[in-house]
Amino acid sequence: MDKELKFYFEQRKKILAFRYVSFLAEWDAQTDAAPGSIAADSEFQTTLSEMSYRLSTDPRFERCVETLYAARDGLDDVLKHEIEVTRKSIADDKKIPVKEYAAFCGLTAQAYPVYVKAKQTSDFALFRPYLEKIVDYCRKQTQWLATDELKGYDILLDIYEPHYTQAKYDAFFKVLRDKLVPFVKEKTARVAPVPDWAKQSFDVNKQREFCEYIRDVMCFDKNYGIMKESEHPFTSGIGTHDVRITTHYYEQDLVSSVFSVIHETGHATYERQVDPKLNGTLSGGGASLGLHESQSRFYENIIGRSSAFWKVHFPKLQRTFAPQLDGVSLEQFVAYVNRTEVSFVRTEADELTYPLHIMLRYEIEQKLIDGSLQVKDLPAYWNEKFGEYFGITPPNDALGVLQDVHWAYGNFGYFPTYALGSAIAAQLYHAMSKDIDVEASLSEGTTKAVNDWLKEHVHKYGASKYPDEILRLATGEDFNAEYYVNYLINKYSEIA
Amino acid sequence: MDKELKFYFEQRKKILAFRYVSFLAEWDAQTDAAPGSIAADSEFQTTLSEMSYRLSTDPRFERCVETLYAARDGLDDVLKHEIEVTRKSIADDKKIPVKEYAAFCGLTAQAYPVYVKAKQTSDFALFRPYLEKIVDYCRKQTQWLATDELKGYDILLDIYEPHYTQAKYDAFFKVLRDKLVPFVKEKTARVAPVPDWAKQSFDVNKQREFCEYIRDVMCFDKNYGIMKESEHPFTSGIGTHDVRITTHYYEQDLVSSVFSVIHETGHATYERQVDPKLNGTLSGGGASLGLHESQSRFYENIIGRSSAFWKVHFPKLQRTFAPQLDGVSLEQFVAYVNRTEVSFVRTEADELTYPLHIMLRYEIEQKLIDGSLQVKDLPAYWNEKFGEYFGITPPNDALGVLQDVHWAYGNFGYFPTYALGSAIAAQLYHAMSKDIDVEASLSEGTTKAVNDWLKEHVHKYGASKYPDEILRLATGEDFNAEYYVNYLINKYSEIA
Repeated sequence: MDKELKFYFEQRKKILAFRYVSFLAEWDAQTDAAPGSIAADSEFQTTLSEMSYRLSTDPRFERCVETLYAARDGLDDVLKHEIEVTRKSIADDKKIPVKEYAAFCGLTAQAYPVYVKAKQTSDFALFRPYLEKIVDYCRKQTQWLATDELKGYDILLDIYEPHYTQAKYDAFFKVLRDKLVPFVKEKTARVAPVPDWAKQSFDVNKQREFCEYIRDVMCFDKNYGIMKESEHPFTSGIGTHDVRITTHYYEQDLVSSVFSVIHETGHATYERQVDPKLNGTLSGGGASLGLHESQSRFYENIIGRSSAFWKVHFPKLQRTFAPQLDGVSLEQFVAYVNRTEVSFVRTEADELTYPLHIMLRYEIEQKLIDGSLQVKDLPAYWNEKFGEYFGITPPNDALGVLQDVHWAYGNFGYFPTYALGSAIAAQLYHAMSKDIDVEASLSEGTTKAVNDWLKEHVHKYGASKYPDEILRLATGEDFNAEYYVNYLINKYSEIA
Repeated sequence: MDKELKFYFEQRKKILAFRYVSFLAEWDAQTDAAPGSIAADSEFQTTLSEMSYRLSTDPRFERCVETLYAARDGLDDVLKHEIEVTRKSIADDKKIPVKEYAAFCGLTAQAYPVYVKAKQTSDFALFRPYLEKIVDYCRKQTQWLATDELKGYDILLDIYEPHYTQAKYDAFFKVLRDKLVPFVKEKTARVAPVPDWAKQSFDVNKQREFCEYIRDVMCFDKNYGIMKESEHPFTSGIGTHDVRITTHYYEQDLVSSVFSVIHETGHATYERQVDPKLNGTLSGGGASLGLHESQSRFYENIIGRSSAFWKVHFPKLQRTFAPQLDGVSLEQFVAYVNRTEVSFVRTEADELTYPLHIMLRYEIEQKLIDGSLQVKDLPAYWNEKFGEYFGITPPNDALGVLQDVHWAYGNFGYFPTYALGSAIAAQLYHAMSKDIDVEASLSEGTTKAVNDWLKEHVHKYGASKYPDEILRLATGEDFNAEYYVNYLINKYSEIA
């Protein structure tokens, strides 16, 4: 056993070192590298990925994990969980025929530029043959990976959010369909116009300065992670000591960068507050996509769009952007950042309408995977359902079925985690509010009380437990979508 | 043979991929990473270095290289040279006892912070015991690596600049001692004061803008490498498609960043202009430290400090820094950037006095390695020799023997390549001037004619030949220090 453990730890160290390489290479490509360098450097990355793949699929490593799994009851809880997860991952990898997987990687590599062109020209027909093959592969994937417990779309959902099956998501989206759809229709019947003061220019250097201030408000220790700029904001971490974020500044939009930074610093705070003992294990970082997203959205929407937050920080914003914000009241600013309106594009949707975009994608994925919807019928189905939920119909496929890149990558089962994240955030907010007065704590000028609660009840576990287990520990109950719908309806009922 | 070649190419691909990792990790640490992240990330780097080391010392790789070496006459010239170099490197590595090497790595890791403190407090006694052990190791190294051809200090010199032995360097430095020392004494007897216009503030954003312009003047294709900022400017490349530089801006110094950028873009141009066929081999990049430095100094000093260069670009500089440069003439500016003065610190020395700083270090290293100088006597010896060459004596060891970090790293034999680089640059300039009118070519506004000549005669070879061979091909003769001394004396005789 000692010999196995020693080998496991050595191998794990190497696996983590290769993760560091990916972290660094991706960071570089997204923020620094010159366009012409990226393609050349990707060849090195391919070689490194192959080395890394060989490491994780080394038969000796597999046997070692099997031995440790058989003796798992003698391991500490963290290692026991890690061995279970690693064993499942090795087993799943082995079930997928190597040839089919390689062909699929080639397919998505080809599909990506075609997708980009199809979106640019709003030409679904161009992308259709690729998407058909991608869906085919994903359906085959559900057959290869089927177990007694999991079949069909559940297999794909489980990849992105363990233990969240169709049964759970169906119940979740049913609540949204029944309660949120009518509420959204009512709320968006009359849309508040964008105020004139928000249509001015806002100096990018001042935005930078304010965003650095926001990171301080959120108590992010800048000694352990930098902020840079990239086309699409993201967070990237490799242990609690190196968590980086990016944002994007738009001179014509004051709040875009601010909410990006709150959102990404939410992700970053999660990574930073994992128990440092989990550094050097495979149980560091976040527990799942949904739980990660719950943290970023908690900070962005529940904290960052609240009156209590801006009551403290709006004066600073107003000073930074004088004279543009002269005469704007706190109430006007908060109303502006909570403006709601139906729109075609998910990534531009507001907090209230956002989950309906996800619901639509979830229903479509379900039907594509169970075969009741064909790719050829997808645009018409998308537009019909969109009209049903939002009351408007996309004028073209670029603003409809072609808007997201996820399917071109073959990421079926990913979308639902976005809505789940928002819903988990609301459930955590409910639980947190029993322990602390969240709004009152913000009057101290930082999110420290919120950070501390989340650290103790969510962050510290890292990926050493499944996300549903962490939610139970944090809130005392299973996932419950009612908190989310109630939160949204309460909040947006109060906003005129 | 085919099997061996196949294995060699596979292994080489992995070795290069690990080089890419080092390239990226160093770039990140020097430019981006937050201070607290660097230490944590270095653990991943240690693991990766170990993997990389195991790859290069894999006995199967060694046998493969031996087989290819035996059959080297059947290989193309590039591969033949690469196999020779790789075989020597493997053989040398094997001659060093692993335990001693590991202890030495530990020693220098410990020595570094002590060196920093000793420099800060100008306390040589603090650093002395470490330096004694470091010198001991380097002397042992010369015993382990001794061959029929190379012994003593030659072993160390050869590590940094193959084929440049004490015999060659002695002849080089003798010319400097005999001709340059008296000339420098004469020239620096009366020092021109720093003009008042150079003592103003120069907006850093405008410096940035001008430095980007300089990269364009030097025809650097920004699609293949970025420029960022770091404490100490450097160049880093990983093939012709990704060559990056850094610089450092000082608001109180207009020309520091400009000449850094010319210098580093000189290095970068070398890397960019290697034959792209050498990408993916171990024969890409520059041929040696000295040859690399010859390129950076060629651009910085011979081109960048010339009247012909500034005749074209000074008006732009003047416009960029109006009103600070109003009323400054081209002649005044060129005189300022060629100002010469004896000073204590090598890194701040001007073109004329610089090589004497190196000569001093060369003579000291020679004596430390052959045992005729003891570390305990080093500060006194340094100060005595410094007085002899420069006519001034360092007021303390921080400005004397403790000023450079190289010895704390154990890099004995490195310094001479700096002076060699300047001398090679002058020899190349002489050869280039037979083919093109260098000054006239600059009137076209770019360094294209210079770039093209250097590409054809130096850069294209990459590391596929030894540096002395490249110099012979480029100039038709062996290294000859006379060109350098003549160049310096001619140039500085003309400057009032």
